[in-house]
Amino acid sequence: MRDFLPADKAQRERVLGVIRESYRAHGFDEIETPVMEDSDRLHAGLGGDNEKLAFAVMKRALKPEDFAAATDALDLADLGLRFDLTVPLARFYASHRGDLPTVFRSIQIAPVWRAERPQKGRYRQFMQCDIDILGEAGPIAEVELITATAATLEALGLAGCSIRVNDRRLLVSSLTIFGFAPEEHDAVLITIDKLDKIGNEGVVAELRQRGFTPTAVDALGAFFARPATMELLPFGEDAIRKALPDGVDPDAVSELAAIGRAVEEGRGEGEPIVQFDPWLVRGMGYYTGTIFEVAHPALGYSLGGGGRYDGMIGRFLGSDVPAAGFSLGFERLVDLVELPEAAGADATALVHDPDMPPAELVALQAKLIADGGRVRLERRPKNLKPLLAQLAASGFTRFSLVSAGATVESLEFKALD
Amino acid sequence: MRDFLPADKAQRERVLGVIRESYRAHGFDEIETPVMEDSDRLHAGLGGDNEKLAFAVMKRALKPEDFAAATDALDLADLGLRFDLTVPLARFYASHRGDLPTVFRSIQIAPVWRAERPQKGRYRQFMQCDIDILGEAGPIAEVELITATAATLEALGLAGCSIRVNDRRLLVSSLTIFGFAPEEHDAVLITIDKLDKIGNEGVVAELRQRGFTPTAVDALGAFFARPATMELLPFGEDAIRKALPDGVDPDAVSELAAIGRAVEEGRGEGEPIVQFDPWLVRGMGYYTGTIFEVAHPALGYSLGGGGRYDGMIGRFLGSDVPAAGFSLGFERLVDLVELPEAAGADATALVHDPDMPPAELVALQAKLIADGGRVRLERRPKNLKPLLAQLAASGFTRFSLVSAGATVESLEFKALD
Repeated sequence: MRDFLPADKAQRERVLGVIRESYRAHGFDEIETPVMEDSDRLHAGLGGDNEKLAFAVMKRALKPEDFAAATDALDLADLGLRFDLTVPLARFYASHRGDLPTVFRSIQIAPVWRAERPQKGRYRQFMQCDIDILGEAGPIAEVELITATAATLEALGLAGCSIRVNDRRLLVSSLTIFGFAPEEHDAVLITIDKLDKIGNEGVVAELRQRGFTPTAVDALGAFFARPATMELLPFGEDAIRKALPDGVDPDAVSELAAIGRAVEEGRGEGEPIVQFDPWLVRGMGYYTGTIFEVAHPALGYSLGGGGRYDGMIGRFLGSDVPAAGFSLGFERLVDLVELPEAAGADATALVHDPDMPPAELVALQAKLIADGGRVRLERRPKNLKPLLAQLAASGFTRFSLVSAGATVESLEFKALD
Repeated sequence: MRDFLPADKAQRERVLGVIRESYRAHGFDEIETPVMEDSDRLHAGLGGDNEKLAFAVMKRALKPEDFAAATDALDLADLGLRFDLTVPLARFYASHRGDLPTVFRSIQIAPVWRAERPQKGRYRQFMQCDIDILGEAGPIAEVELITATAATLEALGLAGCSIRVNDRRLLVSSLTIFGFAPEEHDAVLITIDKLDKIGNEGVVAELRQRGFTPTAVDALGAFFARPATMELLPFGEDAIRKALPDGVDPDAVSELAAIGRAVEEGRGEGEPIVQFDPWLVRGMGYYTGTIFEVAHPALGYSLGGGGRYDGMIGRFLGSDVPAAGFSLGFERLVDLVELPEAAGADATALVHDPDMPPAELVALQAKLIADGGRVRLERRPKNLKPLLAQLAASGFTRFSLVSAGATVESLEFKALD
């Protein structure tokens, strides 16, 4: 968990502002849920391994006999900090469905918590920026999610990103054709998910070592001779078929091809952004169809991802609701973004004599603020230099030395930095 | 704890935006701290009664023998959710002092948590908006805090607010003159703090019943014959002295008078906003000097408050640092504020034929967004009316019925609502 000093906090708020505005422009609505959810909901099996990382919040007014009777932490905890924004969204939708549009497009920009062991690049509190479309079964949902996210990455100035897509049904269909038994699929996918880290040969070796159906591992191994990711534009069905074993689920092929084509045609000119990745897996077990991930050429990790998770909302609601979402990894992208300071407004320091009357100072400040500026009052120290350096570092652009009797018209400004 | 649906969330973000911008314009810098602090820090005696309301977060990987050995909830919890933003600020300043300006003006806009019993108007998660000035002992800090807050209330369109001020030293000095023993002061102030609720006679009766020095209660009772709050502008020393017993702390009188005068002179024309309230107490025990509170004519409760708390930062740092702060009660004011929707930008719904190609839709959407609009795609339902009503309620201003082959130029827009 981290503190954010002024410069970092300002950068974070600027980036969040761009993300919020871009998603709002694409017709999504921001909502907010409490940071704590009932323990029962957090541990209902929808969060995968992340459930184990939930911080547990103790019941209030516990007595010594309660401690003695407890055999598990959850005996003493009725609430927990959310570990993602998807479980809260499902609960939110189940609670408020009657007050929401039939097709509900949500934005959630909020922190989540995971009790990770301290290690580089892992935080116990971090921001997620999620968009989700609930109630839309058709591929237009995926097209909107990818289009809005691609536009947001551009608004952030993150050039060169690509969005890799795949479909869980293609993975399952391929594994079946290779000869893996249905009960092997989940475990095989966990190994394939390591492709970026351990490579084609590493995946095949691990599958062999773990004792999966040998002929199926051989069939998969023959396929891995092909490049793992291929740019498929124009995003045709033929291109997808060529990357997969013969006889793969034809509906999933044509749907994925249509999604890729629609995103690129909708974007018009400019570099294509969608790539088909036949071995993209995405860890979360709740995905049921399309899956996507943001790749950046300079980074060895993804900047976000998502997919279709049609079964999940039904777990809370009792009746199935189609759903798909895209989550940006804010902590990973915030430091890559270089946004210009809001232009135009002067940030002024009024460096004043120690005995200058406060009333005159705040009156000058009020007049400069009324002109659209940002104004900080600083008592003049013996040594001016460190103060001026610190003001420049804090984003102030000019200063004026002020004495009693000064007026806005009489102020002389000098540039900082 | 509450969910916020789109309309509420949008209102909250607009109001927070105004507060953030106003305080930034006055030279304050936003920071952020994690929602959890170490239990030791939360229970160090700086949070008064609120410490008892802290949600406790359980240690990870506890074993059954840990439960059996526990006699107190804090044996099993190493972290807790913050109950205010002042304890985290003190910890933040102690951690980062070397990287902060000598006089540090902070903004914190963030949620806090208190395990209150459910009751009307009390939330277990709520937003606080705090500004603080650390490292400035002089009354210019109070002048800046009150000026910035007054300007923020005006930016929010909250007409008619007043800021009531007092000084803890005047209260203590008055109680001494009445004849209360020093060890009685804190308890007497707790009763005086109920003045708004139980009135002059109620306060005197309670003090009598609780058995405080009878002659002192009589002396105080004679004073309560005067009005409890008086408008003191022009904010002169004479006016303050007139409201208090003879011989009251002269330094505190002249300092408070100077603060009030400076705020009003700095504001220039317009209604005076500062009022002297000789019996304003503010609950928190850590205040050492000036205290303030925002009153609104239409409300029976305050919209915020603050004061000087010079001893507190030293508790974390080892050396004393002068400090003063002002906190706005966001949950109380957010519903009072009526801000106009951001003008100019069209919010458009493209209501399309079910079989319209997604690529054409997102291309139209992208063009309208590029012109500065907000655009939502909606599949055309059999019955258009409920959809249009719902779009209008969601803040959309116009819609267009779209079929395959449409161009931005061919779209016809109709107003919503």
